[in-house]
Amino acid sequence: MEIKIIPIRGIPIPIKPGDDIAKMICEATDEQGTPLQDGDVLVISHKIISKSRGLIHKLSDIKPSKEAMELSKSLNKPPELVELILRETNRIVRLRNGIIICETKHGFVCANAGIDISNVDGGLSAVTLPPNPDEEAFRIRESIKKMKGVDVAVIISDTHGRPFRRGQVNVAIGVAGIKPLRDRRGDNDLFGYTLKSTAIAIADEIASAAELVMGQANEGIPAVIVRGLEYQKCDESSIKDLIMTPQEDLFR
Amino acid sequence: MEIKIIPIRGIPIPIKPGDDIAKMICEATDEQGTPLQDGDVLVISHKIISKSRGLIHKLSDIKPSKEAMELSKSLNKPPELVELILRETNRIVRLRNGIIICETKHGFVCANAGIDISNVDGGLSAVTLPPNPDEEAFRIRESIKKMKGVDVAVIISDTHGRPFRRGQVNVAIGVAGIKPLRDRRGDNDLFGYTLKSTAIAIADEIASAAELVMGQANEGIPAVIVRGLEYQKCDESSIKDLIMTPQEDLFR
Repeated sequence: MEIKIIPIRGIPIPIKPGDDIAKMICEATDEQGTPLQDGDVLVISHKIISKSRGLIHKLSDIKPSKEAMELSKSLNKPPELVELILRETNRIVRLRNGIIICETKHGFVCANAGIDISNVDGGLSAVTLPPNPDEEAFRIRESIKKMKGVDVAVIISDTHGRPFRRGQVNVAIGVAGIKPLRDRRGDNDLFGYTLKSTAIAIADEIASAAELVMGQANEGIPAVIVRGLEYQKCDESSIKDLIMTPQEDLFR
Repeated sequence: MEIKIIPIRGIPIPIKPGDDIAKMICEATDEQGTPLQDGDVLVISHKIISKSRGLIHKLSDIKPSKEAMELSKSLNKPPELVELILRETNRIVRLRNGIIICETKHGFVCANAGIDISNVDGGLSAVTLPPNPDEEAFRIRESIKKMKGVDVAVIISDTHGRPFRRGQVNVAIGVAGIKPLRDRRGDNDLFGYTLKSTAIAIADEIASAAELVMGQANEGIPAVIVRGLEYQKCDESSIKDLIMTPQEDLFR
């Protein structure tokens, strides 16, 4: 089993509100001679989804609360951006060294509630995460099924920092058609030893693999095909499988 | 740029102390018709490195300390295993719900100091991490250069759990020939906005990509070629670039 990671080039950038991402991906993959196939995993940067949904917020339109005004001083960020971050946040997990780590309304723990001002319009506007990334993944999967008759899994991705380790990695924030956690508990190893705690976050590993061709800054590759992977299909998959509750988490 | 993730089959398992991993990898890749090429990244599970170095510890040979005896009760682990974990640990970061999160002597923060009893001998022995994974990666890289005349990067990998998210992912614990962190700070995005904090842990993403074919239990694929990736070469790379100091870490 050899896996291919195929960048999807030629998606018209910038994405505008109302753009049909599934259609754009089908056209771009056909155009470049790598049409989508049954069993492909499609990894899509959340940013183009958010933009297609119009989740672009002009900072000058936002009225910061008193709390945002206060916080913005220590964070060295515009109060309007801090206000936007607070609106997307369930609770602040860490606030130190000018960094704000949030638990988002989805349950993700990440910097600035996943709000980003890069690759938008030069710093004037910010993009928020889709409120329901699973649903976005589901819709794109269904739409591709209808348009092309192929059964693909879809992963919506974002880059997150991690405790203990420097640098960000791409992770899954929404899934459709794939079980995001590959649970190995109960399987035997090569020597007959029963695995006790091995569950692999395969959707996160796929997102990371995709990032190797996606890049981050000016590559303009917002979607990637991962082809040749054996994965557990699932019609009702959810990113919730990968999100720890505060109760089971040792670091909240 | 399309990337291929090629499993290396046919490495003779189990690995025994003194086995020449570099030679085995060269033979297996030649044999399966995917000889190593300049620019390949070779990802190797730490476990075969540890075994080749004889880092296999028979639990019945270990005399647990009083501390290990005490701890073993709450952890539901054999006291000999707990003793081994403590010997590899700089400090305990979390100890809760029968889970012990350690900062290893290398600086990694992971469960059980990276000590594993799966895929060894059915539960009687445990394998510890190599004391210097960078050096192991360096030696394999040099050895392949000498044997085959090709310039490959080498990543030694292990699977780690993460705060906030369920499931483990494969990460880099040793590197040679590749800059493990791709620092994008100062680059411009597509809209001319200067990126402020984007540094991608590319070595971790490569390790995660490799895991997609490595598997965890009984696949017997302990090494993988990642081919076609553009990466920053570096003759004196170190995993230290990816390890946060306790001072910069918000979660220790």
